[in-house]
Amino acid sequence: MTYCVGLLLQEGMVLLSDTRTNAGVDNIATYRKMFTFEDPGERVIVIMTAGSLSVTQTAIARLREAAESPEGEGADSILRANSMLAVAEIVGRTLSDVSAEITDKMNRMKQAATASMIVAGQRRGGAMRMFLVYPEGNFIEAIEDTPYLQIGEHKYGKPILDRVVTPATSLVDGQKAVLLSMDSTLRSNLSVGMPLDLAVIRRDDCRVSDRRRIEAGDPQFAQMSEAWSDALRDGFTRIRI
Amino acid sequence: MTYCVGLLLQEGMVLLSDTRTNAGVDNIATYRKMFTFEDPGERVIVIMTAGSLSVTQTAIARLREAAESPEGEGADSILRANSMLAVAEIVGRTLSDVSAEITDKMNRMKQAATASMIVAGQRRGGAMRMFLVYPEGNFIEAIEDTPYLQIGEHKYGKPILDRVVTPATSLVDGQKAVLLSMDSTLRSNLSVGMPLDLAVIRRDDCRVSDRRRIEAGDPQFAQMSEAWSDALRDGFTRIRI
Repeated sequence: MTYCVGLLLQEGMVLLSDTRTNAGVDNIATYRKMFTFEDPGERVIVIMTAGSLSVTQTAIARLREAAESPEGEGADSILRANSMLAVAEIVGRTLSDVSAEITDKMNRMKQAATASMIVAGQRRGGAMRMFLVYPEGNFIEAIEDTPYLQIGEHKYGKPILDRVVTPATSLVDGQKAVLLSMDSTLRSNLSVGMPLDLAVIRRDDCRVSDRRRIEAGDPQFAQMSEAWSDALRDGFTRIRI
Repeated sequence: MTYCVGLLLQEGMVLLSDTRTNAGVDNIATYRKMFTFEDPGERVIVIMTAGSLSVTQTAIARLREAAESPEGEGADSILRANSMLAVAEIVGRTLSDVSAEITDKMNRMKQAATASMIVAGQRRGGAMRMFLVYPEGNFIEAIEDTPYLQIGEHKYGKPILDRVVTPATSLVDGQKAVLLSMDSTLRSNLSVGMPLDLAVIRRDDCRVSDRRRIEAGDPQFAQMSEAWSDALRDGFTRIRI
């Protein structure tokens, strides 16, 4: 499985994904699940993926090809689409097409291959927006009431987000929140694994403002994880029932 | 859905279940999911259930009927079985039979009805044991390495258990751990709801040593939940990244 989470905050957007892919527990590999499409200062789109690797790789490859095709071609270029809504529609259509094609092949084996995606971005003059695209190609959007979206193994890391994230959360606290949310997931579910990809898009920057790969054994992440465990245990000890 | 959790500790066992049942989100009701079979001082068995209410009610009713049948009848009496292993086998067989019968009826509608159970108990002179019985009737057992079992919506409340529960955890801390695990689940998933049923079985007591129904608005639970939120927010604030 996978865990990806995105926050839509007043100051900007915070995105975090793991990299573990597995075909059964005996076939584990590391694959990037965060993809950037950027015309720096003009437009930034980050896509995170969960689901069948054969679907997500093909869908991302088609989106990349369309985005890099010469002007005039590629009506489906997410780098030339008129709005983030149009971007979500293109991603949804592509995902749904690829998913249908591959499921067609898989049908012979009575299996299905699906995937979902988080699409986050902003183009100059437009609003920051973040969408969760379902396997069927339809999508929902993060809003003030629910300023985060998750795909993959989302349950372990949800309680911390529910408690601390609001649209007014700072970008620094937002990074802390998604990293702790990921930490809980990593501890409780083997199918989610290091390294992690973290990206921050500041409001109106229209580029990835900050990007970091966090490797297994990263001292800063280990320290934060340790401090969080201590805080939980301390809190647990102090509570009386 | 449901959330039930059981701890197998050196001092005894701690069991907690919610009571929410729903057939769609527009049809929510309160049903007990914790059932006690007791010959105080001689034998105690507590069963917690998750899954289709039609399956769990019928299975519990049959177990109850067999347990209360006169001596000589009822080879399937869990109150007369020779060991907790035999109890788990009887529960597994009953669950699997009921599930198959009901699924047979449901098949006409292309639906299935399944359930799983946690069975915990001790008879005088025997060991405390706790089993998770799957819909098919097979089961696994809690052991030192993994001293807890969960059924239903288990993911939200797993991180706290993974961090604080070991076999050496006291019964008081065990109760705190399952209540906080439930608290995280209640906050993040509407299909799990108050009131809660909490039971404690002290080692060699061979009876339910302590039993409590925690109603919505219970001041002690509310206070604990609040203190935990504060501890999490404090811890979150203090951590630096």
